[in-house]
Amino acid sequence: MLNRSVSRRRFLASSVAAIGAASLARFGSSLSLAADVASPARKLGFAFVGIGNFATHELLPGIANCKYCEPVALVSGHLDNAKRVAAKYKIDPKFIYNYDNYDSIRDNPAIDVVYIVLPNGMHAEYTVRAFAAGKHVMCEKPMANTVAECQQMIDAGKGAGKKLQIGYRMHWDAATLACIDALRKNEIGKLEIIETATGFSIGDPKQWRLNRKLAGGGCMMDIGIYSLSAARYLSGEEPTEVFANTYQDTSDPRFKEVEQHCDFQLKFPSGVQASCLSSYATPLNRYVVHGSKGYCVLEPGQAYHGIKFSKTEKGVLKPVDVVGVDQFVGEMDGFALALAGKAPFMATGEEGLQDMRIIEAIYASARSGASVKL
Amino acid sequence: MLNRSVSRRRFLASSVAAIGAASLARFGSSLSLAADVASPARKLGFAFVGIGNFATHELLPGIANCKYCEPVALVSGHLDNAKRVAAKYKIDPKFIYNYDNYDSIRDNPAIDVVYIVLPNGMHAEYTVRAFAAGKHVMCEKPMANTVAECQQMIDAGKGAGKKLQIGYRMHWDAATLACIDALRKNEIGKLEIIETATGFSIGDPKQWRLNRKLAGGGCMMDIGIYSLSAARYLSGEEPTEVFANTYQDTSDPRFKEVEQHCDFQLKFPSGVQASCLSSYATPLNRYVVHGSKGYCVLEPGQAYHGIKFSKTEKGVLKPVDVVGVDQFVGEMDGFALALAGKAPFMATGEEGLQDMRIIEAIYASARSGASVKL
Repeated sequence: MLNRSVSRRRFLASSVAAIGAASLARFGSSLSLAADVASPARKLGFAFVGIGNFATHELLPGIANCKYCEPVALVSGHLDNAKRVAAKYKIDPKFIYNYDNYDSIRDNPAIDVVYIVLPNGMHAEYTVRAFAAGKHVMCEKPMANTVAECQQMIDAGKGAGKKLQIGYRMHWDAATLACIDALRKNEIGKLEIIETATGFSIGDPKQWRLNRKLAGGGCMMDIGIYSLSAARYLSGEEPTEVFANTYQDTSDPRFKEVEQHCDFQLKFPSGVQASCLSSYATPLNRYVVHGSKGYCVLEPGQAYHGIKFSKTEKGVLKPVDVVGVDQFVGEMDGFALALAGKAPFMATGEEGLQDMRIIEAIYASARSGASVKL
Repeated sequence: MLNRSVSRRRFLASSVAAIGAASLARFGSSLSLAADVASPARKLGFAFVGIGNFATHELLPGIANCKYCEPVALVSGHLDNAKRVAAKYKIDPKFIYNYDNYDSIRDNPAIDVVYIVLPNGMHAEYTVRAFAAGKHVMCEKPMANTVAECQQMIDAGKGAGKKLQIGYRMHWDAATLACIDALRKNEIGKLEIIETATGFSIGDPKQWRLNRKLAGGGCMMDIGIYSLSAARYLSGEEPTEVFANTYQDTSDPRFKEVEQHCDFQLKFPSGVQASCLSSYATPLNRYVVHGSKGYCVLEPGQAYHGIKFSKTEKGVLKPVDVVGVDQFVGEMDGFALALAGKAPFMATGEEGLQDMRIIEAIYASARSGASVKL
């Protein structure tokens, strides 16, 4: 348990470094809290809204390993499936809700946090309704389809006096944090160029990710956001200008409504430039940070498990062994600790809003063919 | 010798595929000539103009291994150095010229080809003078500082009835050609995204590469041109639109006059997008082509020797063994064979002009912050 406690303290302290200078200043005074990892009085009860593949195969197994969180309710349109999942995770079948009685979660004191795992276009509505029900909210990325929706979600949380966290798992990934730590310690010298690339070859043309109304866009919204987020946490800066190109072959049944590629460049105040790729047509998964004295690689750069960090030593790229908590445990226990006042809030609504602001600029740039200042 | 002959035929045939659809059409009728590799009547005599590191350590050792070319003259401002080099390569010391008597090469029938290895800003002048002296010309890349100079060089060659080849070594590199061959055979499916990155950390702030007048620009001119050229030969297409960002930290003594980073994106007619990086501040050397069914990697993507080609097989990246001629032997013997009518002309002045046209658009885009149509 000692090792686990040490690594948890380490990940929390490091995580703060990941979220940029602005957040650092904001959370600097809370850093000492992260060292005092006390258990909250009882485990936080999570209700999962939407129990598709991601919730079933990643979030629920993740929360099962949490120290401070447990699943207590499900919201689903598929009762049979919900019953199976409830049985597996010892969730009281009385606490299975559907989309008609969703708002009645307000009457269930066992639910502390609502985790929204719905299509992007439904995030804002279901988040606002969860806040109205008096619950804290975790919401998957992208936070919503538009900046306006993100702002609405933030405002609703503030109005309700409840907290919002976005599902930026990588903010808790141990290899990612070790890479950020190496960069901040100038282990590869002055940062010069960042390359981030995320993509996969998407399947079924009928899935919601390819429906503009539900997804808000194509690869940029779903997988490109990892490249964007990574460029920000790897540089530790906020971009000042963006240029983007998109491509969409509408003769491919998958890309009738949304882009298949979105490539974008970001300029940062220090002079670092990021070149970021995203695709729904080909697998991409590699982040590289080039410095004046060497380079760091995260490959895969994003994944549910198994991020690998390598760093040059005297010009030779070598794997770096990293130990840390599971991303899903990290994000959910991290939220619990923050709610208990034992850790800083990370991956906040403002973080999600900032990515969405940049994504809107990326799409505007791709439409106009001109760079957009941020 | 049989093996060598076979690999030579293979490289010449493949090379034609490397230089794009336009060139293919032009040279298609010459393809059969490539199969008939007969020795020219005598070795072509080369005069090297500028005997710095590159000429001394790469070109002269390269030509020493050529079957159809030999060094016969040197043009240098440093007589002692020229004498040492002449002795090593058995060049008649009478055939050492300087920049004052350069034009008298016209009176030396042993010189067939003048190889210009001077700073970029001197390429046009010395090429035009070589044509005026009745010689064929090889000229290092970038072809010149401007499109106007490139056109002047092409016109001078046509006026003199002499041929011009630009030092695009990679057009003859065996691993590069094997990669292009795999791409054209659709071994990774439909091409989607190309990443090319070339850079190094430049040293002495006083070198000509950092002098705008002599170099014409910074990393883009010198090393970024490899990324550009690669995006063109890997896609097999000509870009229709370009967007670029440059960065220059003028507080670094190396970057008083020229950019340290130039990142650019190219759009191709098929929908392929290329994301290209170049830097004088950090090492970069990797080309990746992502297709619908897999990907190919050239890493290093450009180097004097040792380009490595890998390709996915069922999702796993595997090195591909490639045998072929040395790049320097390839480009010089390739020029000799073309002059003898035994192979198509490749890496022509028009090829250099096309890169320069795109480079001018890249710089224009970086200045304006808007994409530039080509």
